[in-house]
Amino acid sequence: MDSSGVGLVVPSDYTFAGDTDELLLLESGRRFGPITVRYETYGTLNRDRSNAILLLHAFSGDAHAAGYLARDDRRPGWWDTMVGPGRAFDTDRYYVICSNVLGGCRGTTGPGSADPTTGRPYGLSFPVVTLEDMVNVQYRLIRHLGIERLLAVAGGSMGGMQALQWAVSYPDAVAGTIVLASTARLSAQGIAFNAVGRNAITSDVRWCNGDYYGKEPPARGLAIARMVGHITYLSDASMHEKFGRRLQERDQFGFDFSDQFEVESYLEHKGGTFVDRFDANTYLYLSKAIDYFDLGGKYGSLERAFERVTSKFLVVSFSSDWLYPSYQSKEIVVALMRNRKDVSYTELDCPYGHDSFLLETERQRPLLSSFLDTVYRNG
Amino acid sequence: MDSSGVGLVVPSDYTFAGDTDELLLLESGRRFGPITVRYETYGTLNRDRSNAILLLHAFSGDAHAAGYLARDDRRPGWWDTMVGPGRAFDTDRYYVICSNVLGGCRGTTGPGSADPTTGRPYGLSFPVVTLEDMVNVQYRLIRHLGIERLLAVAGGSMGGMQALQWAVSYPDAVAGTIVLASTARLSAQGIAFNAVGRNAITSDVRWCNGDYYGKEPPARGLAIARMVGHITYLSDASMHEKFGRRLQERDQFGFDFSDQFEVESYLEHKGGTFVDRFDANTYLYLSKAIDYFDLGGKYGSLERAFERVTSKFLVVSFSSDWLYPSYQSKEIVVALMRNRKDVSYTELDCPYGHDSFLLETERQRPLLSSFLDTVYRNG
Repeated sequence: MDSSGVGLVVPSDYTFAGDTDELLLLESGRRFGPITVRYETYGTLNRDRSNAILLLHAFSGDAHAAGYLARDDRRPGWWDTMVGPGRAFDTDRYYVICSNVLGGCRGTTGPGSADPTTGRPYGLSFPVVTLEDMVNVQYRLIRHLGIERLLAVAGGSMGGMQALQWAVSYPDAVAGTIVLASTARLSAQGIAFNAVGRNAITSDVRWCNGDYYGKEPPARGLAIARMVGHITYLSDASMHEKFGRRLQERDQFGFDFSDQFEVESYLEHKGGTFVDRFDANTYLYLSKAIDYFDLGGKYGSLERAFERVTSKFLVVSFSSDWLYPSYQSKEIVVALMRNRKDVSYTELDCPYGHDSFLLETERQRPLLSSFLDTVYRNG
Repeated sequence: MDSSGVGLVVPSDYTFAGDTDELLLLESGRRFGPITVRYETYGTLNRDRSNAILLLHAFSGDAHAAGYLARDDRRPGWWDTMVGPGRAFDTDRYYVICSNVLGGCRGTTGPGSADPTTGRPYGLSFPVVTLEDMVNVQYRLIRHLGIERLLAVAGGSMGGMQALQWAVSYPDAVAGTIVLASTARLSAQGIAFNAVGRNAITSDVRWCNGDYYGKEPPARGLAIARMVGHITYLSDASMHEKFGRRLQERDQFGFDFSDQFEVESYLEHKGGTFVDRFDANTYLYLSKAIDYFDLGGKYGSLERAFERVTSKFLVVSFSSDWLYPSYQSKEIVVALMRNRKDVSYTELDCPYGHDSFLLETERQRPLLSSFLDTVYRNG
């Protein structure tokens, strides 16, 4: 537990929309509830409730952004390097919140949760939700915590999309928006990769039209979906650097299909272990939510989407990220500038592909720290 | 049949290594036969047998490079735009040959062929073969056709790899080598994509460890593998241009999983129809052969691999090809130049990704024509 800045943490659950007249109105028009939100907090909310930062997790993330859930945990939360005393999200100064998204499988209500009307998991009867729906759930959580205006919302990848949606949906409730390795709309190529992952899951005979809870899950399908994901998170150069063409446990080709290159073993391992912590149906729902995400499409143009935002923005992209390439960040920046909004943009030259936003801590820290400091001082 | 330059063609089969003492020695050390090679020819071999060009097909290609196999064929061969009177591979001047590779499923012996010792399809008892093995089979075909020295070998993608292997394996038998959108070794990223495809096939319950002939084939697994392939053949920009974020047969989101973007329908269609013309086991064998391909690794370095080549080279890469990016073509060019070999290199600025080598006919034609003319005149 040495490396973490925040030490042991205890997650909380907030449940709302338990009564019919309180149901959450989803973007699809459907009303839904009850919803339980799993969340964690780090640091202390100040007296005037002005120091709260909401972290927004990426596709496979969860509410556990920092610290350890148990003393024998081997690894801290997914953004631990950035959260803690003196870190980018400085818990000596800020109150940091992170929650699992609607549709998730890590504590927040999702397709694997029990439908109270049947007592059985929703499966595919869970509503198709959007990133805006997830943000609306987070807004209810924030209000529950007594916060009217967030110092900042911050996230990478799918988390960055939610951050953008926050700034647009709740212009009065966000002072600063941090968008890392993200986009304002999923590209056709991105939709294509998601479609392959979904096809791998739904083609697994164990998927059973989503009704596999309590039985064998579609582990192979989910593993293959995850393998595709991992390729898109890395770069050609970083895969070459990390694995090259080395064989696993062999010096020479065996000329049979048991021959594996190290990169194959890596993908197999990552895909295989993913099943232990992720639900295949959540993969379907979250990837669909990302497919739908298109701020410009929804509001007529990206420029119009940003018309009413009041937040300051920090946008960071990474040179080797080919899943959400820099040009997509620049589209966000240009649309904000055309609205004369306050936006800082940096492209970091970094070889790790899309994963850079999680790996390149050192160079992001000063960018985030000074942005948060500026927003905090100037309100 | 109007657009084709060569009209109706009749494929031929050549069978060799039928006797035990004539078996082909594979790179794995295994001896194998009999081998039947499906091939087509276009144009006429000249008196001194100096005008023969061998076309080498890519992963999903076959011997049917040009013309029509039947009067009611809807589409000509895969490289028809480049083969015919007055075309790049000018059949008024050259004798053009194309054969299906060893391990294939389009006429040449592969895992779906009958093992003469059992009378049943080989399945996974088919030997793991390499691109060098495929080239050795092509060499036997060329000798069978009475040709000692080819005017040129030419191919894109996996075909380009075979062309390189030809120049290295048979330096006296190749006067010109044309390498389009290819590489001298598969990258870790390339291996990773192939591994996903293989996993999709072998995870399909219908695959039955390769023993599915006469039963339902692993159609879903093969379709998913093909979807992954198609994404890597296109570029982000060309997918945006071709599909954007348009929905299939809908104007608005339906907020259910039947919602499909056009790019999803395209992949589904391409994956689904691929099953009709391609064998899943051949996918495993050919992708493994590509994984193994590493000219520099095999000969100590790429520079050493090219030491004894006598061929002239034309290398063409495409700016938007991220499967075999231009830097990989440049590695070939640099290694040849260090050996003071005769090499021309062009990077064509073209938006269609890896598929550019098949689509960008107009700008490749003069490059290929003049290269072939130079080699033909200077022998």
